[in-house]
Amino acid sequence: MIRINGRRIDEIRPTSIETGLQRYAEGSALITMGDTRVLCAVSVEESVPRFLRGSGRGWVTAEYAMLPRATLTRTSRETTPRGRTQEIQRLIGRSLRAAVDMHSLGERTFTADCDVLQADGGTRTAAITGAYIALYHALASLRDSGDLGDIPVKSGVAAVSVGVVDGEAVLDLCYQEDHRAEVDFNIVMTHEGEFIEVQGTAEDGTFSRARLDELLSLAEIGIDQLSDIQRAAIKDISG
Amino acid sequence: MIRINGRRIDEIRPTSIETGLQRYAEGSALITMGDTRVLCAVSVEESVPRFLRGSGRGWVTAEYAMLPRATLTRTSRETTPRGRTQEIQRLIGRSLRAAVDMHSLGERTFTADCDVLQADGGTRTAAITGAYIALYHALASLRDSGDLGDIPVKSGVAAVSVGVVDGEAVLDLCYQEDHRAEVDFNIVMTHEGEFIEVQGTAEDGTFSRARLDELLSLAEIGIDQLSDIQRAAIKDISG
Amino acid sequence: MIRINGRRIDEIRPTSIETGLQRYAEGSALITMGDTRVLCAVSVEESVPRFLRGSGRGWVTAEYAMLPRATLTRTSRETTPRGRTQEIQRLIGRSLRAAVDMHSLGERTFTADCDVLQADGGTRTAAITGAYIALYHALASLRDSGDLGDIPVKSGVAAVSVGVVDGEAVLDLCYQEDHRAEVDFNIVMTHEGEFIEVQGTAEDGTFSRARLDELLSLAEIGIDQLSDIQRAAIKDISG
Amino acid sequence: MIRINGRRIDEIRPTSIETGLQRYAEGSALITMGDTRVLCAVSVEESVPRFLRGSGRGWVTAEYAMLPRATLTRTSRETTPRGRTQEIQRLIGRSLRAAVDMHSLGERTFTADCDVLQADGGTRTAAITGAYIALYHALASLRDSGDLGDIPVKSGVAAVSVGVVDGEAVLDLCYQEDHRAEVDFNIVMTHEGEFIEVQGTAEDGTFSRARLDELLSLAEIGIDQLSDIQRAAIKDISG
Amino acid sequence: MIRINGRRIDEIRPTSIETGLQRYAEGSALITMGDTRVLCAVSVEESVPRFLRGSGRGWVTAEYAMLPRATLTRTSRETTPRGRTQEIQRLIGRSLRAAVDMHSLGERTFTADCDVLQADGGTRTAAITGAYIALYHALASLRDSGDLGDIPVKSGVAAVSVGVVDGEAVLDLCYQEDHRAEVDFNIVMTHEGEFIEVQGTAEDGTFSRARLDELLSLAEIGIDQLSDIQRAAIKDISG
Amino acid sequence: MIRINGRRIDEIRPTSIETGLQRYAEGSALITMGDTRVLCAVSVEESVPRFLRGSGRGWVTAEYAMLPRATLTRTSRETTPRGRTQEIQRLIGRSLRAAVDMHSLGERTFTADCDVLQADGGTRTAAITGAYIALYHALASLRDSGDLGDIPVKSGVAAVSVGVVDGEAVLDLCYQEDHRAEVDFNIVMTHEGEFIEVQGTAEDGTFSRARLDELLSLAEIGIDQLSDIQRAAIKDISG
Repeated sequence: MIRINGRRIDEIRPTSIETGLQRYAEGSALITMGDTRVLCAVSVEESVPRFLRGSGRGWVTAEYAMLPRATLTRTSRETTPRGRTQEIQRLIGRSLRAAVDMHSLGERTFTADCDVLQADGGTRTAAITGAYIALYHALASLRDSGDLGDIPVKSGVAAVSVGVVDGEAVLDLCYQEDHRAEVDFNIVMTHEGEFIEVQGTAEDGTFSRARLDELLSLAEIGIDQLSDIQRAAIKDISG
Repeated sequence: MIRINGRRIDEIRPTSIETGLQRYAEGSALITMGDTRVLCAVSVEESVPRFLRGSGRGWVTAEYAMLPRATLTRTSRETTPRGRTQEIQRLIGRSLRAAVDMHSLGERTFTADCDVLQADGGTRTAAITGAYIALYHALASLRDSGDLGDIPVKSGVAAVSVGVVDGEAVLDLCYQEDHRAEVDFNIVMTHEGEFIEVQGTAEDGTFSRARLDELLSLAEIGIDQLSDIQRAAIKDISG
Repeated sequence: MIRINGRRIDEIRPTSIETGLQRYAEGSALITMGDTRVLCAVSVEESVPRFLRGSGRGWVTAEYAMLPRATLTRTSRETTPRGRTQEIQRLIGRSLRAAVDMHSLGERTFTADCDVLQADGGTRTAAITGAYIALYHALASLRDSGDLGDIPVKSGVAAVSVGVVDGEAVLDLCYQEDHRAEVDFNIVMTHEGEFIEVQGTAEDGTFSRARLDELLSLAEIGIDQLSDIQRAAIKDISG
Repeated sequence: MIRINGRRIDEIRPTSIETGLQRYAEGSALITMGDTRVLCAVSVEESVPRFLRGSGRGWVTAEYAMLPRATLTRTSRETTPRGRTQEIQRLIGRSLRAAVDMHSLGERTFTADCDVLQADGGTRTAAITGAYIALYHALASLRDSGDLGDIPVKSGVAAVSVGVVDGEAVLDLCYQEDHRAEVDFNIVMTHEGEFIEVQGTAEDGTFSRARLDELLSLAEIGIDQLSDIQRAAIKDISG
Repeated sequence: MIRINGRRIDEIRPTSIETGLQRYAEGSALITMGDTRVLCAVSVEESVPRFLRGSGRGWVTAEYAMLPRATLTRTSRETTPRGRTQEIQRLIGRSLRAAVDMHSLGERTFTADCDVLQADGGTRTAAITGAYIALYHALASLRDSGDLGDIPVKSGVAAVSVGVVDGEAVLDLCYQEDHRAEVDFNIVMTHEGEFIEVQGTAEDGTFSRARLDELLSLAEIGIDQLSDIQRAAIKDISG
Repeated sequence: MIRINGRRIDEIRPTSIETGLQRYAEGSALITMGDTRVLCAVSVEESVPRFLRGSGRGWVTAEYAMLPRATLTRTSRETTPRGRTQEIQRLIGRSLRAAVDMHSLGERTFTADCDVLQADGGTRTAAITGAYIALYHALASLRDSGDLGDIPVKSGVAAVSVGVVDGEAVLDLCYQEDHRAEVDFNIVMTHEGEFIEVQGTAEDGTFSRARLDELLSLAEIGIDQLSDIQRAAIKDISG
């Protein structure tokens, strides 16, 4: 099988992460995975949702949106976030919360705004991978300003898609592949290879347990590649 | 580990499915899994959404709601379905569409209304298991009235939750177990043991690939048990 | 005039009230009047609306909804309660408040959720008759748990419809009768035969004062029959 | 009992109806009942709601709103009509439809906008009494322009409130009386003394059948007085 | 150029302001400019928006709406204020705030409700001119009741439209002129001839700086004429 | 007076326009004015709003939004565009429509999405200046693909803010200046020096006609500077 742009089935698209582009945000990262670009900005607020007040714990949440012309043809702005958008926001939030020690954040809310500038598939996984770096950046800012003693990260977090296209399992689907995939998985993992989230759907037909195993292995390869890129970005921040 | 009500870790709760309770619906099923009760009614409309008009194909969709006092304390009615509700509705719809041959439905829409009368955990998986029977019932009604030549089901569909509670993998979590689970999966499968949907989240911490394998095996056991109950309910309908 | 199912003009449909079906609710009742079935659950909250805070008085309110397939053909779920629904909710609330001594409830809110499982006419009057029993049930629960010294009911409350069909005054209209009624009344009364609410509309033409008198007399007969059924249900609760 | 402004219990407030104030409307009437003032404008549109298309029948509908400072203290504008407003709009619409022969209107919609300029009780009944005149005015305009052969009115329609205040039945309650009424009725009748709508509620306690009879008799007296004022207003229009 | 009704290009329409029509409002004014009529009512509330609490300063705000049949053909009621409505409300509010010394109002909110009874062009400028008088009236009421020591007005405020119609600059456009204007300005000024707001748009083509100067001069003439009418209305109030 | 960053009072901030960043859009431009950055993307749709169907004319419209962290502290996403946003969108749309010959566009809609990536004052004027280039870019794309014979631009359009800060008239206000400005104008002009829109408000106090003249002259200087930058960007596109 020959993939678009000649990629191997176990190869992610050319990926880079730039930090600090959003001048006013405590943390920010622009992630580029092929033609997918997501701008992630993390804002810090000195309060927490009602259910955490007085608990001494912090909170991490996320919002996700697309610029209308991120897509091939224009998509209307959402007045209220649709089901798909909310599903993605909840997924990003859960993934980021798995990365940090909530007890060491102080009673602060970290909001990761993930705005898709350009969409060529895999926007939700790119958002997670980028937002983790923006969050790290924000935590580093707070440490540098003395508001945090340390950076309370439990483990790095990255996400990638895998799927079955034309009967073959492949890593990091672009839009054209995603569009005709029979099976579609989004997988969130730590830098240590533990799972945080596994979401897979048979878009057409069903899939066997053997196929599921194959897909999980591909995801592990992709997360490894992304972890290296994230570690480099973190090195830039920590300078 | 001793579970609530003395269940084994690989044992589903006492489950029954009653069909035909909703007098006006083309198909209906009341599923009871322990203290969880979901009333599923399938309605047939002789039209399809715009994107399918003229395609000769049918459509299956689902709505999910809870009575305000299905829960331990009263929950307000939703004015617009929240993110969680929409996520569940989309999951039920996808699962039911995997069960039938859309090309043989005619240009008809089948809407499965899943109303939770009582909620003790696992309402979304119970809704899928029950809605499949209500859908079968509706298809049988159309066949009996001559509107369909046959019942265009590709394979039976059931769903079950599995999770990690107090460090141990268990099948079919009730509310108390679900509430303190470290890992929580919803799994949709066919009667033949193929996967349709795998959704798993680490609520607290992460999970290893070995643990994931263990959970998938438990789910397979649960789906087997549910498939038998579904086949008995179908025998009643076809009587 | 021969009515559907051979009823006399002054005869209500076969009616029964089952209590305690909703396991988590403080009070519940399922009322069946012919093919109309309404599930009533009363929830108790230890607070009152703002305008009553500090008054020492309680509050009783109601919500009303239909399952989408309660009706002959599917009815969409209401995102915001329509005018008709709000009108019914306000009517149920007023009727229940007439039944109890608000000064003896404590600063508590009793919310009666009336969910129509199946609709064959007279759903709002059935909801009132059933919700009164669910409310009584909730008050009895509070007395049994020592939260109330007594059951602060001033008088039993029931409701029934009367109308003019094919030129003749009839009691307790089913959907087919209601649909072609020239005049349509909903009447709420106490067990002692006093009026709480009289709502009548000429759907087609007008009606004379003599006709109005005839309809009121029929309603009194219906309320008598319902009061007996309610007293039996209360005996079960107090058992 | 001495009423505010020295009225007898069976006496309506000083009432007048001015027509033609809204220059662009096909029909308009400003009704003043004491300090209650409602501006009614009827607009004609050459189309009908979907359910009447092709039926040859017309439709009459109504909207009701208050200026924010119609009331003693400012009331916020309604973004979506509340339950009370919708209830009133439906009541006005039904009352007007009872006045005309829908088959002779042509496929036209008559919309009566009833905007309360000042509110001192009885705004919904004043709106009905005034809107009937605005509707008559609009029908006369269409007859004068040749769009209707005749004025298809079946009978004049008026509305009035009656209630029990301080234990006594009184006619046409002003705000202060309405506020402390134990029983509150709105009654819509024809000029010939037939009933169109009877809506009565015990605000505090209950009421007997004898009391109900007394209130209906008072309403008949009020409708007589209003019918005379309406007939004079119609004479002005027909000039 | 001969204008509708024979007006000169530098002549406003026949204009009058009546105060005190809304019985319950602290201040009210009905302004009539030709066939445009706007009812302005100012309400006083003893509180301010959150951002002013504790500042000792007051606030002035405005709402603007049209009766559905103010216009040539019926306009639907707005459920949420549209962009145009919000733009007008903000303009009226800013203009009124320029008229008063906010520090001398006490922590009170003055809300000017501007309801257009009839619309023949220039409704937003008429609303400003009328609302200023209603505001003055409300301030005078508070002074008369001793709640204010004085009337804290910095300067009178009026507004007028100017525009280019058929290539000629004209003052105070009616609907027919406004509809075909090439350039359209709304200008708010003080009685002393200072500017508060200048809003001009080329509806068709562009305009030169010389043309802009010509329009500003016309506006100054119009504001002079309106100031005289406002001073007379104020004399009536203070009478 | 010494301005922030040492600017002269008649000097715009360092400004650049980059085209073609949004890969899928027919036209795009990223405008940077100091720390204000707006991404403008123009999408072309082969249809027009209802009121233009069959007219042979095209339409140009605009949307405006801010990323949540474009601002100093995070701003919530708007669920429905607020008044200010709608006002800005309407202003951008009008300005762009003044630039093109609507009769030569064909029945097409051009939508300019202006998304503020970073906000340091003057975002609406930057959006107009940038969106004009994105629109030109889209028109050039259509000409290059043969869908348009020519680029139907009547004249270049740019916008700039002027205002009074600390008693002095200044050009192109940054956020800190805008925040404490006494008078604030947004002015839209053509490359030929004709006016399209003049919007000015006294935020504090009033302003004289002489001051107004001074501000207009400053705006003319700013538009000249922006026109040069726009012409250079156009040369790049036409390359």
